Amino acid sequence: MKFATLKSSSPDGRLVVVSRDGARAVYASGIAATMIDAVERWEQVSPALKVLYEQLNEGTAEGSFAFNPRDCAAPLPRTYQWCDASAFLNHGRLMEKAFNTDPIPDFETIPVMYQGASDDFLGPHDDVPLPDESLGIDFEGEFGVIVGRVPMGVSPHAAQEQVRLLVQINDWSLRKLGPREMATGFGFFQCKPSTSFAPLAITPDEIGPAWSEGRVKLNLHVEWNGEWFGHPNGAQMNYSFGELIAHAARTRKLSAGTVIGSGTVSNTERAVGSACIAERRVIEIIDQGEARTGFMRFGDTVRMVAQDAQGNTPFGVVDQRVVQSSV
Amino acid sequence: MKFATLKSSSPDGRLVVVSRDGARAVYASGIAATMIDAVERWEQVSPALKVLYEQLNEGTAEGSFAFNPRDCAAPLPRTYQWCDASAFLNHGRLMEKAFNTDPIPDFETIPVMYQGASDDFLGPHDDVPLPDESLGIDFEGEFGVIVGRVPMGVSPHAAQEQVRLLVQINDWSLRKLGPREMATGFGFFQCKPSTSFAPLAITPDEIGPAWSEGRVKLNLHVEWNGEWFGHPNGAQMNYSFGELIAHAARTRKLSAGTVIGSGTVSNTERAVGSACIAERRVIEIIDQGEARTGFMRFGDTVRMVAQDAQGNTPFGVVDQRVVQSSV
Repeated sequence: MKFATLKSSSPDGRLVVVSRDGARAVYASGIAATMIDAVERWEQVSPALKVLYEQLNEGTAEGSFAFNPRDCAAPLPRTYQWCDASAFLNHGRLMEKAFNTDPIPDFETIPVMYQGASDDFLGPHDDVPLPDESLGIDFEGEFGVIVGRVPMGVSPHAAQEQVRLLVQINDWSLRKLGPREMATGFGFFQCKPSTSFAPLAITPDEIGPAWSEGRVKLNLHVEWNGEWFGHPNGAQMNYSFGELIAHAARTRKLSAGTVIGSGTVSNTERAVGSACIAERRVIEIIDQGEARTGFMRFGDTVRMVAQDAQGNTPFGVVDQRVVQSSV
Repeated sequence: MKFATLKSSSPDGRLVVVSRDGARAVYASGIAATMIDAVERWEQVSPALKVLYEQLNEGTAEGSFAFNPRDCAAPLPRTYQWCDASAFLNHGRLMEKAFNTDPIPDFETIPVMYQGASDDFLGPHDDVPLPDESLGIDFEGEFGVIVGRVPMGVSPHAAQEQVRLLVQINDWSLRKLGPREMATGFGFFQCKPSTSFAPLAITPDEIGPAWSEGRVKLNLHVEWNGEWFGHPNGAQMNYSFGELIAHAARTRKLSAGTVIGSGTVSNTERAVGSACIAERRVIEIIDQGEARTGFMRFGDTVRMVAQDAQGNTPFGVVDQRVVQSSV
């Protein structure tokens, strides 16, 4: 199944079921008014959502209309918890090498994860208001999962059973603020403004074998101002989503609608490029002695789309512009 | 005004207005069904809530009943954002001194703040399920504020205008997990299980002059297993809540219902004791060469109550027991 949230007068928007080809949509109102409602009552509502999805694909769903991703909020425009990992160790190792920082303790055996802000997610075509160009504006292409209720102390295997939906994420970062916040030990805060999402949240079966071992094994194509920036694949994630969920739930339960992110998709092969500017800069430092690529400027755009070998784009497209905030 | 949330079949509970003396309550259903609803529509609903509050105080509110704090969830049983500072620098300085760690950069001029989990807050008398006694179970007595919508880049002065309600917090910590998480730079995560709240969320006018300079200037009395542990005062907070809110909103807007915490209340005078075990242990290390006080065990209780000179307890009481989680 494929879902999206259309913007409405409510901060939670309105849930629509979207056809497999992404062309048509229909309100799920009679079944679940919002995405958070659907995820919280998943066992109860998913059979009816499935029937509606099949009707939509067959062209028999009443009240269907053309789906326009520009009308979309994030699939969950806000939720109660957002936890973002850094599960592609290649990315972390590059960062350490370039900045000559102390290695993160237990990096190979315990996932690193920060608690993010979940009160204000941006939609796939929303402008991204930020206060200052000099803060090192960067995109980060990621995959993520939306989970059901997860009990404290869950095993990675049982945790993975709680994956309800897959999502594609653009985790905005302000790189100049990061090092100071890391040095406090309190972690990322101001360096992580509102996170953005591709329009479609999908059940794992929608990508067939590309969902395996708890990973989204698709290329994530990233363009900055219309130019190729990278297309790393999700297969090289060093921890599965099951392992990441279990990490998050070690000392507390997770509520339904919790979003768990993979961290920047990153591959060891240099030829596939990167999914964030910081990583390209780090590679420049290692290979050429200094960073040559700057960060984003107001007016710049970034486009991200996960694609399979047949050219299908199961999550739709993130295409955003950075603008100066009005305050 | 005083508010509480009674547990119900909904995860958001049911909002009640509570009388000034804490004895009676009345459902606010006709005005706002839940606390998050009230905070989101504050300008619209607060006049009617005020009328109901006055009726309750005068004994004329229809349908009022005896208020039982044991029926309470946290005032916001869940919300979209929880940001906790460490705004009593005395606490941070003691920690640094005892552990001989690098000073936190800009500690005197930029607040430190971590993003906490807001999906599962505990009520004032809820048991606290935790997986393992060996993790260094600790309480932390704090004050906090619930804010309305805050724009990005707000000034501390304008930020303080967005304080809707004051709360009293018990921010549980697992101390043995903290240092490793701080060393990763990603910040607190597993070391911060679900946070607990005293039953009453109150408008600042309820404490009169004890709310001034953006601080809750009350003693916070803490007892561990029925024995005095400390009663530090909120006046020594080194940053005002306005400054903390502005810090949180530097690179993003904050949604209504965001909770901002002060961090452990801590005073320079040793005689007033501490509001968390870690601080007492640190003082023992400094004064006696080693920590003599252990952390909490399963079955232990902690009681916290803010009190004014007349013995009024405007937030009610936190009284919780630590238990082993069932998984």
